Amino acid sequence: MRLLFATLVVALAVQASGGILGFDAAGTERQLALEAELDASVDAADLAFWMRGLAARPHHTGSEHGEMNVESLANWFTSWGYDTEITSYEILIPRPTERRLVLESPTRFVASLTERPMMSDPSSRFAGDMLPPYNSFSPDGDVRGNVVYVNYGRIEDYETLERHGVDVSGKIVIARYGATFRGMKPKIAALHGAIGCIIYSDPVDDGYYQGPVYPDGPHKNATGVQRGSIMDLPLHAGDVLTPGRPAIAGEPRLAREDAAAIAPIPTLPISYGDAEPILAAMKGPVAPREWRGALPVTYRLGGGEATVHLKVTFDWQMLTAKNVIARRTGSQFPDQWVIRGNHHDAWNHGARDPISGLIALLAEAKAIAAMPEPKRTIVYAAWDAEEHGLMGSTEWVEEHIETLRTNAVAYLNTDGNGRGFLGMGGSHALDKAFVQAADAVVDPQTGVSVLRRRQANICVNQGGEACGRAKSGLQFRALGSGSDYSPFFQHVGIPSINSSFRGEGHSGAYHTMHDTVMHFERDIDPGHDYGVALAQLNGRITLRLANATVLPFDLGAITTIVKKYLAEVKKLADDQRETTKRQNEHLAAGDFALVLDPSGSLMPPERRPAVPHFNFAPLDNAVMRLEQATDALELEANRDYAAIERINQLLYTAEAELMNPKGLPDRPWYRHQLYAPGTFEGYGAKTLPAIRESIEYRNYAQVPGAIEDLAAALDRLTMRVEEIRVLADD
Amino acid sequence: MRLLFATLVVALAVQASGGILGFDAAGTERQLALEAELDASVDAADLAFWMRGLAARPHHTGSEHGEMNVESLANWFTSWGYDTEITSYEILIPRPTERRLVLESPTRFVASLTERPMMSDPSSRFAGDMLPPYNSFSPDGDVRGNVVYVNYGRIEDYETLERHGVDVSGKIVIARYGATFRGMKPKIAALHGAIGCIIYSDPVDDGYYQGPVYPDGPHKNATGVQRGSIMDLPLHAGDVLTPGRPAIAGEPRLAREDAAAIAPIPTLPISYGDAEPILAAMKGPVAPREWRGALPVTYRLGGGEATVHLKVTFDWQMLTAKNVIARRTGSQFPDQWVIRGNHHDAWNHGARDPISGLIALLAEAKAIAAMPEPKRTIVYAAWDAEEHGLMGSTEWVEEHIETLRTNAVAYLNTDGNGRGFLGMGGSHALDKAFVQAADAVVDPQTGVSVLRRRQANICVNQGGEACGRAKSGLQFRALGSGSDYSPFFQHVGIPSINSSFRGEGHSGAYHTMHDTVMHFERDIDPGHDYGVALAQLNGRITLRLANATVLPFDLGAITTIVKKYLAEVKKLADDQRETTKRQNEHLAAGDFALVLDPSGSLMPPERRPAVPHFNFAPLDNAVMRLEQATDALELEANRDYAAIERINQLLYTAEAELMNPKGLPDRPWYRHQLYAPGTFEGYGAKTLPAIRESIEYRNYAQVPGAIEDLAAALDRLTMRVEEIRVLADD
Repeated sequence: MRLLFATLVVALAVQASGGILGFDAAGTERQLALEAELDASVDAADLAFWMRGLAARPHHTGSEHGEMNVESLANWFTSWGYDTEITSYEILIPRPTERRLVLESPTRFVASLTERPMMSDPSSRFAGDMLPPYNSFSPDGDVRGNVVYVNYGRIEDYETLERHGVDVSGKIVIARYGATFRGMKPKIAALHGAIGCIIYSDPVDDGYYQGPVYPDGPHKNATGVQRGSIMDLPLHAGDVLTPGRPAIAGEPRLAREDAAAIAPIPTLPISYGDAEPILAAMKGPVAPREWRGALPVTYRLGGGEATVHLKVTFDWQMLTAKNVIARRTGSQFPDQWVIRGNHHDAWNHGARDPISGLIALLAEAKAIAAMPEPKRTIVYAAWDAEEHGLMGSTEWVEEHIETLRTNAVAYLNTDGNGRGFLGMGGSHALDKAFVQAADAVVDPQTGVSVLRRRQANICVNQGGEACGRAKSGLQFRALGSGSDYSPFFQHVGIPSINSSFRGEGHSGAYHTMHDTVMHFERDIDPGHDYGVALAQLNGRITLRLANATVLPFDLGAITTIVKKYLAEVKKLADDQRETTKRQNEHLAAGDFALVLDPSGSLMPPERRPAVPHFNFAPLDNAVMRLEQATDALELEANRDYAAIERINQLLYTAEAELMNPKGLPDRPWYRHQLYAPGTFEGYGAKTLPAIRESIEYRNYAQVPGAIEDLAAALDRLTMRVEEIRVLADD
Repeated sequence: MRLLFATLVVALAVQASGGILGFDAAGTERQLALEAELDASVDAADLAFWMRGLAARPHHTGSEHGEMNVESLANWFTSWGYDTEITSYEILIPRPTERRLVLESPTRFVASLTERPMMSDPSSRFAGDMLPPYNSFSPDGDVRGNVVYVNYGRIEDYETLERHGVDVSGKIVIARYGATFRGMKPKIAALHGAIGCIIYSDPVDDGYYQGPVYPDGPHKNATGVQRGSIMDLPLHAGDVLTPGRPAIAGEPRLAREDAAAIAPIPTLPISYGDAEPILAAMKGPVAPREWRGALPVTYRLGGGEATVHLKVTFDWQMLTAKNVIARRTGSQFPDQWVIRGNHHDAWNHGARDPISGLIALLAEAKAIAAMPEPKRTIVYAAWDAEEHGLMGSTEWVEEHIETLRTNAVAYLNTDGNGRGFLGMGGSHALDKAFVQAADAVVDPQTGVSVLRRRQANICVNQGGEACGRAKSGLQFRALGSGSDYSPFFQHVGIPSINSSFRGEGHSGAYHTMHDTVMHFERDIDPGHDYGVALAQLNGRITLRLANATVLPFDLGAITTIVKKYLAEVKKLADDQRETTKRQNEHLAAGDFALVLDPSGSLMPPERRPAVPHFNFAPLDNAVMRLEQATDALELEANRDYAAIERINQLLYTAEAELMNPKGLPDRPWYRHQLYAPGTFEGYGAKTLPAIRESIEYRNYAQVPGAIEDLAAALDRLTMRVEEIRVLADD
């Protein structure tokens, strides 16, 4: 009763505020009726049923249950009336043939490398077709060496090691999961000369330190291991043998040894139970405080005493990745496609990752199938082989890139779901439209809108400026990588959104054998309430984009966000200049020699070249021109534009003007000049990436070119905005 | 060679800068010669010899070795030519007769309560006369109850517990050492209804998390227990039966049950080895992240499942505390006393606490004995029973309070010593003089002055404003309590300083059986180099105060520091007002209900009354008047003041004008209106304590009176400054 009331209030509020963005009054009314139908149709019982089927058994790419899921998905879509096809790609996917890790001195310990099945969890006991813990795209290797603890294995962690006089060259590093995409850990270790890489989950980040462990509680137990790909995702996504090209018959393949995205050194993930004896055996300087975890040992940097033997080999097979693509053709604009996707492959059972997101997508598709034809085409996609490196989506995008460039209105991604607060990121031109949709979806635990709950959270926990922004500013976080939006968004420039609920229902099951239905329904989203909310949210934005008169792209938001990012990179340069200057002054004055404990291991930092001033004027001027253009553009949903189809197409393809045809420095696959995964972060976004990373990594000579390229892109966007304005004025 | 050169440079710098504060050119030259003699006389071999003797065995108050030490100390002082006396006080000091801690459910575990002797450390193996781990001034008690984990047991920790719905009433709390004086833990627990208190050292603060443990390394091992007094030190220091009066024959004693400073509930300290099974047995909400330690358990708040039995009984004997007081009478001003003290009693061997400070004092006394008579009287004091609550010093001060009010120029305290960076606190009127002395003492590890090394540390590690202050501002931290300066400084108003070296040579031996000579000389200050530096520093300031023409009190520094503290309390009120307002708004809007996880335990905070605005004008005006007066006061060491003896006496007794004769709210023993130990902190200082605590604890009605009292004190000080100026102008 309460929820129904809240929905009505929300609907009335939208009408009072001038209607849904992109719809006139009559259109708003029709659309609200559709959305009420959507809300009523999405059924938690459906979600639970689909999850039980899809996540019953391990269903990684190429597995028997994976094949069954593809068939089930295709059948469901077909039964609801979609034109459904299965698109297949031949992809290199390694699976392990041997895994061995032994501490050989000062004591001997053979790592178990095995997760403990739980008698109380039927799924977790099911062992058939289970993939053991490994990192896909580790090379084969058989190495022996001293162990060095490298914390999260970030660039700055190696700077700390250097200041302690610890060299990883010729050694095996042990890094903890967290802070970066796991593939960055062997990549950065190898840059520093390491010959092997062990990655473990420390209980401080993911284990008993966080709460009771599985099966008593939701957190990672001493045997749980996070699997995962370690391909060089910030270099490119998709099949490592066909970067930038579809992995279909007739396309040339790289030789495996030429595939730059394969990790450089043998790498193996382990549990904290297996890590503890290794960490306990290490000597050397005590690790800095921020490096220490929650195992009952003194965390030390190592480097000289403990020796391990690491051996991993793989089958290096070509597997078939199968996407399910379901299409409902638009009545008015069949060549304008709203694309909605979630992957279907999982490391094992994958109840949360990815099934909790996929079942929301299915609920949307089922509900929308029962409605009148949308104006635009809606495409549902269930991607395969996401876990190995966004393979299914990337190959599909690479195959259809020219069509997508003209037809793709937007790509709406999910990748599993949790409980709690709405998280959302993507193209800021869609920020307002998505936020408006979020204000119409009811939070199942509190009865207010999911937007209002999100705002309350930010206002109570962060307050101040963040609260102000949460109420009136742009809400999207910048997208890095780690899910299927990446090929659409950063390779092609298709406006994209990624969303989920999170912040409650914590879990340590990610990529372990414990990501099961029992765990999900006990610890994460018991009644599938947030699955329902996710379907209501993404179904709503899908419908709005499919039916809007004027597509609700706010190009002024691009001006706003570029101004913000530009201010950030200017401050980055200023701060780096000031810090470098101060540090060099301290070095010159001999201050570090006075401050550092003579009986400790820490040494002064290296002297760095002074940070130059940069000419940001070309960018400032381009932003000024863009601002003038976007300020002057006003499109109204209740006007009758003669060229509406063309105007809409110019709107949804505007984001593509921000692409750099040359790509980003040293990684041509990534072309978006506003958002990219950090070269050494992998998941985390770098905004204005070419400029920002050139400053961060002190490649100052690259900065002027990066500024010029972005300024040119903004000027192209300005021209595009003016073109739209002229058409609208006709 | 390098060190000698550095000393010369320092001496030349002092001369170039206009001489030592309080000395004319000729006086500076004579004084520098004395200081060169001091530096040359202080001998690390003496320090090592004395430490080996004094710390050979446990020497707590009333122990056999303690008696021997008193005799040795008296004999050494006498042999160097001091008038030496032993002053005795009869003090209630409890020692344990029974200690028992048993986890009774859900499993049974009997705590060992025993430290492990180390075969590799001869002292630590010496068991005769060892005091077992206990908290003195726990009451007798025999209690059973559920256990609640209360983090550090601070006021705010109980607010957090309340928000999780966990009540400690009728329960036994387990608190970790740290953040506050240990006596605050049972005090605050009892205020919330707890019936017993266990205190343990968590390895995250003090154990393997910090580094290798004893005997392999310096950190606390799984059997180490911190002993210590839990009397209510922020209420008063000294004998609990004679607060404010000397514990000598003929003085009335309180009945034990009327002694307010005795802890309210039975309390026992334990090791992390003994704490782990108890913490592991607890259920209830997972503790907040900042509460979690480094034991391999999920830290939980408890409250319903684990039950313990705690029994402690004590002998409640009257013991004789014996101070050694050595006096060298001044040639010109015998009734002006420079007092230098360090306690001699220890929990067990006490190599670091307190012997490392006491041997520096002995070295000073020996060196100064060989010099010509000082102008003023120098008094050396070795205090007894400091560990139980600053007993020896407090009783002596209370016995001689009237004489000290007229005669005491300053009290210079140390209480053990470490390695690294100079730490110093006290009366800001002496800040400049002490800093100037610190600039003349050579740091043994780097060859620059100990002041320069301190500055470099602050500038490199904190930078910015802190660096600016370290170079030109006031350097003293505010003193709270925890050592023998407290009766001099906060009860009487005698200008006081406390100093030590620290920050390197970490140790977990504090108040354990492992605070031994082997540990000190291996892990803390191997060559006693910093003991030498501490003697050179305190010997220097002692000599300067004893010989200065015009005593180097900078009363303008009091203006400066009061202005700073006043700005802080204004900001405290403003921030509290803003935070309270915002929180109440969130409560009114129902935001917490939206933000808090419905399946979690955390509840919204309580609504608080709005924070009023306060009339600080009386204080602002008093500060303005004081500033005018101190700005107008200029005393020059090369002028011949007729009334110099009186001028000096007015200078050194000026601090006493800041005393409130009524004492602070609810604790009349503490009278200083600028500095006090926090009522619920114990060690940590609260500046402008009456005002600050009235705001912090929301006793707003007390604020106007506290403002008036301080303004009146500042006006008395203003009159005093004008009196000095008139005398100087005569």
